[in-house]
Amino acid sequence: MTAVWWDGDAVGYIDQRLLPTRIERSRADSVDGVVEAIASLAVRGAPCIGVFGAYGVALARQLYGTGDAFQAAAARIRAARPTAVNLAWAVDRAMAALPVDPLETALAIHDEQRAVDGAIGRFGAALLPADGAVITHCNTGPLATGGDGTALGVIIAAHRAGKRIHVVVDETRPLLQGARLTTLELSAAGVPATLIVDGAAAAAIARFGVACAIVGADRIARSGDTANKVGTLGLALACAYHRIPFYVAAPRSTIDFALASGAEIPIEERGAGEVREFGGVATAPPHTAVFNPAFDVTPGRLVAGIVTEYGVSRPPYDESLPNLATRPSGIFALR
Amino acid sequence: MTAVWWDGDAVGYIDQRLLPTRIERSRADSVDGVVEAIASLAVRGAPCIGVFGAYGVALARQLYGTGDAFQAAAARIRAARPTAVNLAWAVDRAMAALPVDPLETALAIHDEQRAVDGAIGRFGAALLPADGAVITHCNTGPLATGGDGTALGVIIAAHRAGKRIHVVVDETRPLLQGARLTTLELSAAGVPATLIVDGAAAAAIARFGVACAIVGADRIARSGDTANKVGTLGLALACAYHRIPFYVAAPRSTIDFALASGAEIPIEERGAGEVREFGGVATAPPHTAVFNPAFDVTPGRLVAGIVTEYGVSRPPYDESLPNLATRPSGIFALR
Repeated sequence: MTAVWWDGDAVGYIDQRLLPTRIERSRADSVDGVVEAIASLAVRGAPCIGVFGAYGVALARQLYGTGDAFQAAAARIRAARPTAVNLAWAVDRAMAALPVDPLETALAIHDEQRAVDGAIGRFGAALLPADGAVITHCNTGPLATGGDGTALGVIIAAHRAGKRIHVVVDETRPLLQGARLTTLELSAAGVPATLIVDGAAAAAIARFGVACAIVGADRIARSGDTANKVGTLGLALACAYHRIPFYVAAPRSTIDFALASGAEIPIEERGAGEVREFGGVATAPPHTAVFNPAFDVTPGRLVAGIVTEYGVSRPPYDESLPNLATRPSGIFALR
Repeated sequence: MTAVWWDGDAVGYIDQRLLPTRIERSRADSVDGVVEAIASLAVRGAPCIGVFGAYGVALARQLYGTGDAFQAAAARIRAARPTAVNLAWAVDRAMAALPVDPLETALAIHDEQRAVDGAIGRFGAALLPADGAVITHCNTGPLATGGDGTALGVIIAAHRAGKRIHVVVDETRPLLQGARLTTLELSAAGVPATLIVDGAAAAAIARFGVACAIVGADRIARSGDTANKVGTLGLALACAYHRIPFYVAAPRSTIDFALASGAEIPIEERGAGEVREFGGVATAPPHTAVFNPAFDVTPGRLVAGIVTEYGVSRPPYDESLPNLATRPSGIFALR
């Protein structure tokens, strides 16, 4: 399963709005199409949006040459989703590399993303059981990164290495990324999976003899405190209760070396509609007050290891994580 | 808000299948209507079904007198939902009391239910803060018992006693009893409430400074191990993490004195459809494997107190709970 790709004279992508009902391969053959795909969440997942945006710049170069229209197109793509850091970073990198063909830069960014995911997968796979169950939360696979994914990349790497892994998947309310996307990615990769509601995690760990949990991250502090999709902390507590390790897998770029602890991580609160209705069907009375944080923070003391493209960092994170800050940057350091 | 009532020549009920979109007061004026209301889950909640079934027997007596048709009608009502213990118990009690008018027995059963809920409410209200937030899971209010409810009865009693309570309500996947029913009951009782997804419980406890959790129970072992709606254990773990008390409120009849521990409580597994779709909308690929336990078991060591109609039992439960077994039976003991 590949989320985005270069398609000769267009940018190819899976329209993630239609998942899991339909897997539709679409093509953006105009700058409008690229911007629309990003803005409408047809393409999602911060790393994946970055790769897609870089391909968008390559498309704009094909369409408009090198003049003002090209510059304006790149600026529009860069602004298609203002909060996705990877998008601005990837567009800026393609533009800074000119006169290098933006397609060359885009393909390099995509290659690097695959290489980072691949390294995370190799280091993380060693943590998983040779034959057993693991549990995960939200969506961290090919649809999110454009590579093999982070936490799900670890699972897929272990499966490919011959480990017999069965994955318990939290549905991940409110937006159901686990139910809609992760189940699909695992099915595409041939990894057996069982879906549960988030509240059944502790029961499922006992029922399936789950060996460990592995999840992604949106931001990690020096203390190992990890902001990730809401419900992650609940899963970490279920792991602590059952005394099984809880792992985080994320690229080094997720670690915010400026933050001493998770208390400094701002938590986005999203709209009430995500909780009060699903698929147009009301799940609660219309004026019910809702608290809908997008993320929660799992304290580093509940995290058994953090897998990056440089290896597995272990507690105490205040000592192990800062070492990563001084490692050479970029994918070439991995070779 | 009253879930079921005697309506002169019919049994009145709120059709809970239409909640929260419509609050429709319906009447069952035939035995078919009574059986259908129970079997279709228009009336739900074990205590509530018991009260409704007893009123059904009273209706059958009005329609058929005392002959074979009446006996057959009572047997049909008793079998409308085979696993609801309270239903068989209430029908048997009405039949055993003959020639006492079944309506008299039904009204007594309903009175007793209200009295038990009232006693639980009074004892439990003392545990809640004078001004603060509490968190609950699933549906334990008037719609579930025909009285004021158990855990929600405690909250409503505290509110009526002048405490300023704000309730954080877990939506309670997969069937969303918290979102659909509990929010409605709290709104009807005038208690402010905020709805969350189950995975946001730990975040919400921090955000609102929640003082304690209070939930109902389906079955309690002598050890205090408590089987309740799936997700309850996750909430108990979130409370332990934040060092706030987690309380259970349930009638003494919920305590199974024959069970030494929760390991002996059988856990019903329900169908995959509840997790894979909502309101006819697919939430996951159609053939995804699902694990859907209806309940989980919270160990007694995570339970700060168990509120019954006899008061608040505290750990060690192996000592405090057996005392309740020897208390006089029936509501008259409360007077």
